Amino acid sequence: MKTEMPTIFSAKRTSFVRTSVIREILKLTVENSDMLSFAGGLPNPHLLPKDILSSVMESVVKDHSATALQYGDSSGYQALRTQIAEKLTDVYWISPDSISVTHGSQQGLDILGKMFMDSDTNVLLEDPVYLGALQAFSPYQPNFFSVPMEPDGPNFYLLEEILSQNKIHIFYANPSYQNPSTYTWSLEKRKRIASILDEKEVILIEDEAYRYLDFDGKVYPSVSSFRKRIDLTFVLGSFSKILSPGFRLGWVVVPEVYRSLFTAIKQGNDLNSNQFSQVVVSKLLERIDWKEHLRSIQTFYSEKQKILVSLLKEYIPEAKFSLPEGGMFLWVEYPKVSQKELMAGCLTNGVAMVPGSEFSPESKFSANFRMNFSFLGKEEMEEGVRRIAKVYRDINT
Amino acid sequence: MKTEMPTIFSAKRTSFVRTSVIREILKLTVENSDMLSFAGGLPNPHLLPKDILSSVMESVVKDHSATALQYGDSSGYQALRTQIAEKLTDVYWISPDSISVTHGSQQGLDILGKMFMDSDTNVLLEDPVYLGALQAFSPYQPNFFSVPMEPDGPNFYLLEEILSQNKIHIFYANPSYQNPSTYTWSLEKRKRIASILDEKEVILIEDEAYRYLDFDGKVYPSVSSFRKRIDLTFVLGSFSKILSPGFRLGWVVVPEVYRSLFTAIKQGNDLNSNQFSQVVVSKLLERIDWKEHLRSIQTFYSEKQKILVSLLKEYIPEAKFSLPEGGMFLWVEYPKVSQKELMAGCLTNGVAMVPGSEFSPESKFSANFRMNFSFLGKEEMEEGVRRIAKVYRDINT
Repeated sequence: MKTEMPTIFSAKRTSFVRTSVIREILKLTVENSDMLSFAGGLPNPHLLPKDILSSVMESVVKDHSATALQYGDSSGYQALRTQIAEKLTDVYWISPDSISVTHGSQQGLDILGKMFMDSDTNVLLEDPVYLGALQAFSPYQPNFFSVPMEPDGPNFYLLEEILSQNKIHIFYANPSYQNPSTYTWSLEKRKRIASILDEKEVILIEDEAYRYLDFDGKVYPSVSSFRKRIDLTFVLGSFSKILSPGFRLGWVVVPEVYRSLFTAIKQGNDLNSNQFSQVVVSKLLERIDWKEHLRSIQTFYSEKQKILVSLLKEYIPEAKFSLPEGGMFLWVEYPKVSQKELMAGCLTNGVAMVPGSEFSPESKFSANFRMNFSFLGKEEMEEGVRRIAKVYRDINT
Repeated sequence: MKTEMPTIFSAKRTSFVRTSVIREILKLTVENSDMLSFAGGLPNPHLLPKDILSSVMESVVKDHSATALQYGDSSGYQALRTQIAEKLTDVYWISPDSISVTHGSQQGLDILGKMFMDSDTNVLLEDPVYLGALQAFSPYQPNFFSVPMEPDGPNFYLLEEILSQNKIHIFYANPSYQNPSTYTWSLEKRKRIASILDEKEVILIEDEAYRYLDFDGKVYPSVSSFRKRIDLTFVLGSFSKILSPGFRLGWVVVPEVYRSLFTAIKQGNDLNSNQFSQVVVSKLLERIDWKEHLRSIQTFYSEKQKILVSLLKEYIPEAKFSLPEGGMFLWVEYPKVSQKELMAGCLTNGVAMVPGSEFSPESKFSANFRMNFSFLGKEEMEEGVRRIAKVYRDINT
């Protein structure tokens, strides 16, 4: 959805600024406590062990305040960068220096947009694509290309065709439990695509925000880990889904040649990431049994997903979706109704989903909705699906 | 200082990206614990009452984690926006809706740069100017104009001339205890300049990061508070100097016509500001005796300033500077030496200051250095000034 702009003085790029329906709906749910929202990508805030968090907070205030309450390095808190390099990346050239801590992975997208995208930059997106990437990149006005997604990754034939017929500079992809399609690239496609990106000299922006949310505890190797051109591949990660979005921290693995530029842009954007949060997260990573913590999150999401799946099958058997391997969403097709009408009816009846057209620069996916299952409790989910079913039946009679 | 760019693919705007010597020096001081730094604008981390902070943290984790550990409104946490509107602004049209919470006031500068600045946008700066503003604005490639600063504000005659001879779109100013000159606009100049900006229809970006750091507890009315064109004036504030830079929070007072655009850009940049920090700061504002807290900060800075002033008079009587009314810097002229040589000698001898040329798009102020007095203790300051004096004498013999 494009923002409606008043006829006021502003830079030309602002006509390309996009608002997010998700953020608008998030606002509605904050204002209206009766609204049941499948819209946001909200992790469950109770997955973080409170006792450990309390004790970490106490120790940070007591023993680490000189660091935690100060400005910090624009690339991030060194101890945290080391932990990310050791625990949360799989590319073979990794070092703490290659990690830049960002204000959520969203800021990584903005910095990379600023770094790479001019009006003559050709940027390939997945179709559908993560809406936040459209928001981050659009003001820099690149030319967008799209490759259709299949359940095991991009359609390879079409990808090859696009790369052969156009000089693509950047490929932005979200290979694991993609937002919104939930599709995960197969191991084979990861390798083949890494190889063709090397051959065609394409910069990959690999968004791995959901990397650790596999329902069975599997971790796919990143596409970047298969690349030979390690100067042309960036990997984005996030603490939002594995610890808490409240700390607002993500990171980018930055190739050596781009590090000074990345840091200089970060400085101009906001000097440095939140130092207090960085120290807290670093201490949390020291204290939490990481494998066990991830397993508990994965189990939690897996169970929530099963609940939503069985509710949809029970109340709206017409709804179509494929079963994701991980993540926090279902990508659901509601056949034979207008997306706009279903959306409006749902909001009126106190239930929210994100219309599929939001995830496409050309507003495709007019039958789909993205449904989050991580936030609502079981009873709320049931009531929510009931409300959707009622609206769906009312329209589709 | 321009970053040295590798010859690699990047957007055209990146050739305008500037690094900050301050951040480079900050990194040196982190790496070399013997380095005495007058360079950073580092507040003293011990000014925040630890007992209150501990108890606030405990209550946030215990009672407010559902809010604090979640995503939030892109414009900011509502309770905090209300407090800012009530306590920390003086423009008559204020409301919580006019406040957007940002990731430090630096992010406010980046968002406003993105919102307003094209290659044909004329931006007037103070001369010297806050380096972070140059970093934020430069990638958007506006045309910079400069108005020379006097101890009571911009030279009004030259300001009038610039505004008459050019269509200036934006004026970026830091009227209170300016960084780096330490100059403060007089009440009279505030009124006259507000009026001429109204007349010429110029957007004012008023950076009030130091607003509450007056040594005598005085608070100047903002220039924006005198403007009639309330659609053309933005005020930036910061918690970094009055609470802690570790929370990385600032705010922007945004005119109504620009609010939806500002929020949409904020979303693309990083979705929302750090929610945990916002809840903590909001609770701190509830708990701290605000007047007493500000007074203790002001007294602290006032005493630190006196110490540096007397050390400079004792060890380097040749050094020239005017006495600021507030803030955390002295703007010191070291006559008869090369800035580059003095800078290099200081770094070699374990003491850092920021060269004045950093604060000018044209690298003027080649005799000046900016010296911070808020961070170092008394003995460290003395040792630091001794080191500078030695280098100065070695060069200037």
